Amino acid sequence: MIDHRHLRVALLGAGAVGSQVAALLLKHGDELADRAGASLQLAGIAVRDVDAPRDVDLPQELFTTDAESLIVGADIVIELIGGIEPARTHLLQAINSGADVVTANKALLATYGSEIFDAADQVGAQVYYEAAAAGAIPIIRPLRDSLAGDRVQRIMGIVNGTTNYILDRMDTEGAEFSDVLAQAQALGYAEADPTADVEGYDAAQKAAILASLAFHTAVPLESVHREGITAITTQMMDAARHAGYVIKLLAVCERLTGQDSPTGEAISVRVYPALVPRSHPLASVHGANNAVFVEAEAAGSLMFYGAGAGGVQTASAVLGDVVSAARRHIAGGVGVGESTRANLPVLPIGHAQTRYQITLEVSDQAGVLAHIAGTLSEGHVSIATVEQTVIAEDGADSGRARLVIGTHKAREQDLSDTVDRLADSDVVERVVSVLRVEGD
Amino acid sequence: MIDHRHLRVALLGAGAVGSQVAALLLKHGDELADRAGASLQLAGIAVRDVDAPRDVDLPQELFTTDAESLIVGADIVIELIGGIEPARTHLLQAINSGADVVTANKALLATYGSEIFDAADQVGAQVYYEAAAAGAIPIIRPLRDSLAGDRVQRIMGIVNGTTNYILDRMDTEGAEFSDVLAQAQALGYAEADPTADVEGYDAAQKAAILASLAFHTAVPLESVHREGITAITTQMMDAARHAGYVIKLLAVCERLTGQDSPTGEAISVRVYPALVPRSHPLASVHGANNAVFVEAEAAGSLMFYGAGAGGVQTASAVLGDVVSAARRHIAGGVGVGESTRANLPVLPIGHAQTRYQITLEVSDQAGVLAHIAGTLSEGHVSIATVEQTVIAEDGADSGRARLVIGTHKAREQDLSDTVDRLADSDVVERVVSVLRVEGD
Repeated sequence: MIDHRHLRVALLGAGAVGSQVAALLLKHGDELADRAGASLQLAGIAVRDVDAPRDVDLPQELFTTDAESLIVGADIVIELIGGIEPARTHLLQAINSGADVVTANKALLATYGSEIFDAADQVGAQVYYEAAAAGAIPIIRPLRDSLAGDRVQRIMGIVNGTTNYILDRMDTEGAEFSDVLAQAQALGYAEADPTADVEGYDAAQKAAILASLAFHTAVPLESVHREGITAITTQMMDAARHAGYVIKLLAVCERLTGQDSPTGEAISVRVYPALVPRSHPLASVHGANNAVFVEAEAAGSLMFYGAGAGGVQTASAVLGDVVSAARRHIAGGVGVGESTRANLPVLPIGHAQTRYQITLEVSDQAGVLAHIAGTLSEGHVSIATVEQTVIAEDGADSGRARLVIGTHKAREQDLSDTVDRLADSDVVERVVSVLRVEGD
Repeated sequence: MIDHRHLRVALLGAGAVGSQVAALLLKHGDELADRAGASLQLAGIAVRDVDAPRDVDLPQELFTTDAESLIVGADIVIELIGGIEPARTHLLQAINSGADVVTANKALLATYGSEIFDAADQVGAQVYYEAAAAGAIPIIRPLRDSLAGDRVQRIMGIVNGTTNYILDRMDTEGAEFSDVLAQAQALGYAEADPTADVEGYDAAQKAAILASLAFHTAVPLESVHREGITAITTQMMDAARHAGYVIKLLAVCERLTGQDSPTGEAISVRVYPALVPRSHPLASVHGANNAVFVEAEAAGSLMFYGAGAGGVQTASAVLGDVVSAARRHIAGGVGVGESTRANLPVLPIGHAQTRYQITLEVSDQAGVLAHIAGTLSEGHVSIATVEQTVIAEDGADSGRARLVIGTHKAREQDLSDTVDRLADSDVVERVVSVLRVEGD
């Protein structure tokens, strides 16, 4: 046995992820020590209530409510409390007391990332956060390090397991959103308050983190356009299937070049449900799995696939960070800060360009199509495909038709103005849906 | 502009990858400097012939035949010569003169990895080799760092683009191996001498590298079992398709627990064509693409997908390593050595356990199936499925039948002994094929 250095690890939080991290650290301690070149002593676990029930059995004497004392003297602090406070205060304390920190806290990083990274830079500490985006999938190191010599053009990520589970079941079973959500809640795939997932807040936080890394730019969470999946109906699912698409909640992070951006090179970061061609690798991401599809100038297309959540899965990513932090302690040197010097402007959603699928109910009379085509053309929206179906009512012609219009790439602002004009038009009875198309 | 440190980069080799590395380093130098926190000066490119034609235009004054002088005084040395010598000597010189080294040389690492890593450890240098396995796909950092806190159970990788291209075309077009190989050579997907690819040598080198990382064990190339794809026929492809499989050349790296291994925990590393269920994510890896499927105790199933070769794609991985090396130079500290302390024994192929599909031609007479079932049973090979088809010849019963036997998991040694006995049996006219089944 090599004479190891000895590192003290403080764990903050013992929820679904934290309790698994503690259990694995205790179970595989010798193995991790061999890999890290240092023994990793779990010095304690700070929790609000030392007597609360845990997912796994852990030695009672490790628990404490005194996070501050635990942090003092720790070499590595693992923050798995979640949310903003007290996580933020504890992380900053840990950094300022000389520890390297490991966190899975996407809300905190997406909101106070710059403050935390700056604090770490000041003292030469390192912040590790592989678990903060896409759970167990190694995506932080690939973006931060492996692709640091390349130019990422675009990321399309399925980064929220709950919504992918819901959309996948709606697609495969023809089930209603509300029914699948209720079942997902019963199975523990969705929270009692599902807002963070189904309204895209969780995905938006991850998008901000991924875009920051990919484009070497601090991306504020407020600049991420966000739409959820609550408006997705079985009708939209059926229509998507019919047209060769599947609906996925995507986090899209895109580099816009001069011609697509009024300010020179810029980026767009957005979360919304989109039509993805069935042949695209992201279309085969089923259940609660996550995947991140990356297009880079030199590397071409890459995809990273795996479990996006789950206590033990996420614990894997956290422990990988702990080993990295330990190795860095042994190797010496200061932490490598975040690369944010590209500092690209994040453009509002109006500048994004995608293809769209617009579904309208219109009066089924002569000249309607010409009128609508004219409105689209005036709005700088170019038509790629049109499919018209007469709507039958009680077996008889209803006098109305359904029009599904696929567009070429258009600016979001142009599209949205045009749809407003269509909605006001006398011949359009109803705008059934407007969906972006990504990945083709 | 921040006052950067200044790092000298020496490039050895200007082939398909090297010339792209040089071009991108010159084109995106400012951007890379921002990310690295250091300006990266391409000090020179060592080649055998300074006047040889290159894939891209590069300033002639950068070229030199004097690699040794170029290495002296370089902070980062990129070795893209390939092969063993002079690459090995140059890499060791670079390490001993205080440089960090970046290499894509799988042959060198699979053969002399221990020597090179030890030399780096001695002086505190770091060896980066993201491009040495699966080209542009970030797989080294995920295994080395992200999964360092987990226990990898198994890797199944499509790590050779040429063979995947050939097998994919054989599968989709029903083409013969030799015809597809000839076309692949014409298109530049296969070398004039295709041995390294089609006989599995290239994949075996990558398997040794991946297994070393995944199992924290120095895996000697000689311990990797290797079979190529030259014996794969269109008949085997058709039969595989009929049974719901596709044939892929896989690099399998597997942890064997006590009950499957005579020596306690051990590993098995092997490269061979195998039947993969059509529903497995690896089955949808088409063309010259690569993918690495990883199963880990905590993280579950992960997949990494992308371009496995190509000059500019591989250059992406090399430049990511260059940025990492530069960041480490700025941060200070010594290099983090390879984690090889688990030092697990690598068992010979006889201990591997998989399912098999055995195809036989037998005399179509009473008692044959019972006889064959008896032989399998005596050999500790358990039958899962049997399909018997009478072979017609000129429209008449030939008196022979084709038997496709799917087995449960069996030890390779038991299976191979049993197949030998079957081949010697009077009722077996011919052993048509024996294929392993992986991924179900």
